[in-house]
Amino acid sequence: MHAVDLIRKKRDGERLSRTELEFLIAGYVRGDIPDYQMAAWNMAVYFRGMDPEEITDLTLIMAQSGDTLDLSAIRGIKVDKHSTGGVGDTTTLIVAPLVASLGVPVAKMSGRGLGHTGGTVDKLESIPGFQVSLEPEQFVSQVNRIGLSLVGQTGQLAPADKLLYALRDVTATVESIPLIASSIMSKKIAAGADGFVLDVKVGKGAFMKTEEDAVELAKTMVQIGQLAGRDTMALVTDMNQPLGRAIGNALEVKEAIRTLRGEGPERLTGLCIELAVEMVLMADIASSRQEARQSVLESLRSGDALHKLRELIEAQGGDGRVVDDPSILPQASYTKDILAGQSGYLQAIDPLIIGMVAMELGAGREHKDSVIDLAVGIELQTEVGDYVHDQTVLARIYANDQSKLEQGARQVLQAFQFSESQPLLQPTIYRKITAQEL
Amino acid sequence: MHAVDLIRKKRDGERLSRTELEFLIAGYVRGDIPDYQMAAWNMAVYFRGMDPEEITDLTLIMAQSGDTLDLSAIRGIKVDKHSTGGVGDTTTLIVAPLVASLGVPVAKMSGRGLGHTGGTVDKLESIPGFQVSLEPEQFVSQVNRIGLSLVGQTGQLAPADKLLYALRDVTATVESIPLIASSIMSKKIAAGADGFVLDVKVGKGAFMKTEEDAVELAKTMVQIGQLAGRDTMALVTDMNQPLGRAIGNALEVKEAIRTLRGEGPERLTGLCIELAVEMVLMADIASSRQEARQSVLESLRSGDALHKLRELIEAQGGDGRVVDDPSILPQASYTKDILAGQSGYLQAIDPLIIGMVAMELGAGREHKDSVIDLAVGIELQTEVGDYVHDQTVLARIYANDQSKLEQGARQVLQAFQFSESQPLLQPTIYRKITAQEL
Repeated sequence: MHAVDLIRKKRDGERLSRTELEFLIAGYVRGDIPDYQMAAWNMAVYFRGMDPEEITDLTLIMAQSGDTLDLSAIRGIKVDKHSTGGVGDTTTLIVAPLVASLGVPVAKMSGRGLGHTGGTVDKLESIPGFQVSLEPEQFVSQVNRIGLSLVGQTGQLAPADKLLYALRDVTATVESIPLIASSIMSKKIAAGADGFVLDVKVGKGAFMKTEEDAVELAKTMVQIGQLAGRDTMALVTDMNQPLGRAIGNALEVKEAIRTLRGEGPERLTGLCIELAVEMVLMADIASSRQEARQSVLESLRSGDALHKLRELIEAQGGDGRVVDDPSILPQASYTKDILAGQSGYLQAIDPLIIGMVAMELGAGREHKDSVIDLAVGIELQTEVGDYVHDQTVLARIYANDQSKLEQGARQVLQAFQFSESQPLLQPTIYRKITAQEL
Repeated sequence: MHAVDLIRKKRDGERLSRTELEFLIAGYVRGDIPDYQMAAWNMAVYFRGMDPEEITDLTLIMAQSGDTLDLSAIRGIKVDKHSTGGVGDTTTLIVAPLVASLGVPVAKMSGRGLGHTGGTVDKLESIPGFQVSLEPEQFVSQVNRIGLSLVGQTGQLAPADKLLYALRDVTATVESIPLIASSIMSKKIAAGADGFVLDVKVGKGAFMKTEEDAVELAKTMVQIGQLAGRDTMALVTDMNQPLGRAIGNALEVKEAIRTLRGEGPERLTGLCIELAVEMVLMADIASSRQEARQSVLESLRSGDALHKLRELIEAQGGDGRVVDDPSILPQASYTKDILAGQSGYLQAIDPLIIGMVAMELGAGREHKDSVIDLAVGIELQTEVGDYVHDQTVLARIYANDQSKLEQGARQVLQAFQFSESQPLLQPTIYRKITAQEL
């Protein structure tokens, strides 16, 4: 078998067999197949695509290219949740304790933020004492003890994907749905859960800009899950405005706590409830959707979900008092309120601008090795559809540096669009994709 | 400027400016842009193509990436001829002295054979004493003295093309018409002639398998020539059977001599006359096509063309007696006649099989560094359309090794297809492409 023949095959629109993909990926990881051949193959995939079995083969080969987590010692159906990344997307911090409080075993690895999008691991690190890395046995035993572990990625999960992604990043082959889908799913599958609830973001602040692309990505991932024998479903959700009101690590932890108290913003709360319902159903601990929803709402109402977050924090060495007193979290030295300076309806709040401004304040990473500031960020005080006046506070900026505060204050206003007439409100959830509907 | 942005631009179907192409090619030649980025860009070009100005920019950038020949010291309009490569394609050995005898200055660099196709430089080396490398001043002064120089490629002509071609070869991006056209034309332009007559082969034994592709390649090259200010035209010619009857280096020199005597095979002779007419017209030494054709025929008839070949051979250190006594050329130790073994019309002679068998006999190179045997090869004794009997000799095999002789004898028969009815004969020249017709 020669790599050049496999490139040609894909270039000409043919499918590669599992054996051929194994030859390619294993050879690449070993260093026998050079970057330039993989780069050409990636570009051929960009143009020609892959069929569902082919994508699944690629996913499983990448999943098995390094360490894989064995969660079999955890009782019950382990359900993982994944978001393709957005702005003000604090769902994991809310949904994980919420469903764990209902008996869904959650053994979850999360990522760090990059660019305008945040990452759960960074947010958790804003909680004093919280340890984001656990030994594998501890990771598993904690789920059996309290129903939940939340850690950063450990070990060598899907190293083939890591190599391939780095190459795609410098060869303009990131934007290929088969490659995106297999990249995400390979890491998820290696992380060992039995089922996945996927949150595919779409809009200005998301990687997928059109609903069509987002639906295709969602379908592709659900299909991979199905073919790989893992229960998988996806929600395609709005990212044309920040999901929650808080953008920045400690600020998002505060918002998660508020939301678990039932005092969170409506759109964030609504999506968290839907994601939780799907996870509860997938874990097979409710007999109907209605029962699942009732349990979820009850856990929020009763404070069980918030209590579970406290248990999680304390189990991983953090200061559990934070759930009652968020002032324990890192605080920014400076704040500034941004006034509307005009009156009218809020037509749009650009999540990409909000995310970029938050990144520049220090909340996010421009490069993989950027150092972030856990205290800083933006808190929106308004939502799309609100009628604002001249003196209405649109947002509050948090910074640890006067000049960044001023710069952020200037830039953030560009995210807001006003109109004379009331804008049509978009739903938070556009589509639900299940294996049955493929 | 970042290479990844230029890859993305091409991937998305946009054109690159001359500055962008210069950044890419110069960066690649310097080693600043890695193979994997060029590989991805090449594959994007494979799918997206390039527009005529873009292809011309790429061609000129590659032409100027190394040495360029200055032929300005040669009087007259220097016309070069290029064939995209075929089997039994001895045209350069015939056409170059033919047009030189009429006053067309020919300062020509030729290549070596690879795979099933032959190369003029190898053929010339079968003439005892012939030197295929000349110092640049000698190369030029010889054209002013006798009208003709024929050498191998010297110096660093279009090193960017060499690098790019080697990369395309291992990344399945050879088969891109913009990249093929710019590769050929960059070397031709660097070699300094004022005008080019191109012979684009099409069929089983050619790189272009369909007339559509061959016409597109021809048009692309003619357009590059036009945009680069070099008079260029192309003939699209048949390579569904070997052009001449001889395949192998010394055998082809013999056939060239026979053809210059007016005793060559009809198809080869016919194409040589057409190519010569085009070169004479391009060099502006005939006032009409009819006059050009008469001059060409007269040079063949009078022996002037053959005499010019002798002059060339002697000027470059070879034994000029070869034109009268081809037995001076290397002779194979063994020959074997291949009989038809059946009766019927010859329906087809597969040039790819003939070329591959000749290569395995030792006449051609499997790899760039293979050592070839100048004496061996195949001489066809029949042509498509001939009616053959059981005992008709189809071909004669020449070898220097009994086992290769036997192997060649067994394999060559597969090239011949017979039929009950007389086959339709294909013309040798399918299409003529000039700048006016684009």
